[in-house]
Amino acid sequence: MTGRLAIVGIGPGAAELVTPLATETLAAATDLVGYGPYLARVPERPGQKRHASDNREELARAREALALAVLGRNVAVVSSGDPGVFAMASAMFEAIETGLEAWKSIEVTVVPGVSAMFAAAAKAGAPLGHDFCVISLSDNLKPWELVERRLAAAAQAGFVMALYNPISRARPWQLGRALDRLRAALPAATPVIFGRAAGRPDERIETVRLDEARPDMADMATCIIVGSTETRLIERQDRAPLVYTPRYSRESSR
Amino acid sequence: MTGRLAIVGIGPGAAELVTPLATETLAAATDLVGYGPYLARVPERPGQKRHASDNREELARAREALALAVLGRNVAVVSSGDPGVFAMASAMFEAIETGLEAWKSIEVTVVPGVSAMFAAAAKAGAPLGHDFCVISLSDNLKPWELVERRLAAAAQAGFVMALYNPISRARPWQLGRALDRLRAALPAATPVIFGRAAGRPDERIETVRLDEARPDMADMATCIIVGSTETRLIERQDRAPLVYTPRYSRESSR
Repeated sequence: MTGRLAIVGIGPGAAELVTPLATETLAAATDLVGYGPYLARVPERPGQKRHASDNREELARAREALALAVLGRNVAVVSSGDPGVFAMASAMFEAIETGLEAWKSIEVTVVPGVSAMFAAAAKAGAPLGHDFCVISLSDNLKPWELVERRLAAAAQAGFVMALYNPISRARPWQLGRALDRLRAALPAATPVIFGRAAGRPDERIETVRLDEARPDMADMATCIIVGSTETRLIERQDRAPLVYTPRYSRESSR
Repeated sequence: MTGRLAIVGIGPGAAELVTPLATETLAAATDLVGYGPYLARVPERPGQKRHASDNREELARAREALALAVLGRNVAVVSSGDPGVFAMASAMFEAIETGLEAWKSIEVTVVPGVSAMFAAAAKAGAPLGHDFCVISLSDNLKPWELVERRLAAAAQAGFVMALYNPISRARPWQLGRALDRLRAALPAATPVIFGRAAGRPDERIETVRLDEARPDMADMATCIIVGSTETRLIERQDRAPLVYTPRYSRESSR
């Protein structure tokens, strides 16, 4: 008897941003699989089993979830943000494709969620209001040269950028190099938003100029949004400025 | 006495994807402002006023909302998807920047939501599982040449793409030109997902090869996701294939 598997996005952290579909799916599961701190955000439920794992173990975690589902369990894989954006969904499908044939007949659903970049953008204004790119700065699974090439292409084409996985103990120098690359391509006054833990008690949202952006303004919980030449600041009395990218573009084809 | 204004994302359409924060914010408002069909998704509440407008009237709608808030009303502007992604947030900030000085002192918040592209991606698998771009095909507010330049830059740099506003009665030829541009830059077998009304009763999710993609597969309610050369299909018996983009990239710097 084959079970079911849902990959569930629980959003950026605040309980009030967990969708009803995510809440219901998590409540109906017999087994929850995920990174420990994300599992800790899900309310306890009697009889439900929890399988916590370390952050770096995406593929092992995915296989564990599939092994449970194929035995007839109703498994929910807990993912932060939206599970399709640098989270668990892609690892799950990689495990299905490269794994046991029986895993392909498991009923798999993805429950979308509010992403960290949307939560950070909302706190700052509407910096993602026009065409934008989403780039992971991690070079664990792709060559660093490709990251730099994409940053340059995005800047050159006038995209706003949301940067995921900016820095960690194992990747200390990459963000500095990325900021240098961006400074070579964009005006010094380009707004850069460091959006940390948006909507959580330890939230910190900071907007600086590109020439003032430093790697130590970010940590693992930060999503960085880099404006385009069209991104604007609305200064306000006694409040943080609002940052938005207009719907129109004055840029012509270069 | 100055009121408050919230720009609220109600997600892609299904009630089960409206966050609790959106539900509470809408319930607490004295006035709801928005495009008629989006307002119709919000439960009626006695004493609450509704100000419905046409779809093309973003800036006029934004000014109406600000004029109400400055009089002390508690206004919620209803937006589909995430309000920061080709929706109402950017228009609101444009109206604030270009409008009355008093509007700048209104307390403005943005309530993020699940975007249409996340809902469409979730139904297909995890096509946005790696670096991606989000591009509006509308040339109402930017030159068409810029759209083509961004499509070419995104394809060249190996980004997956989510395409918003693909086609309408007023913009009948743009999608065909965009697909031709992409065919010139990407392999014929590149997966293209036409994700229409994901999560709603009239949902239709269709995955085709780029060389088979036609403009009549889309309408105004469609978000199109174009894979990269790394995007993969998992074929399954008696079910639609799963589409995902791996977390790793085998592509080197070109």
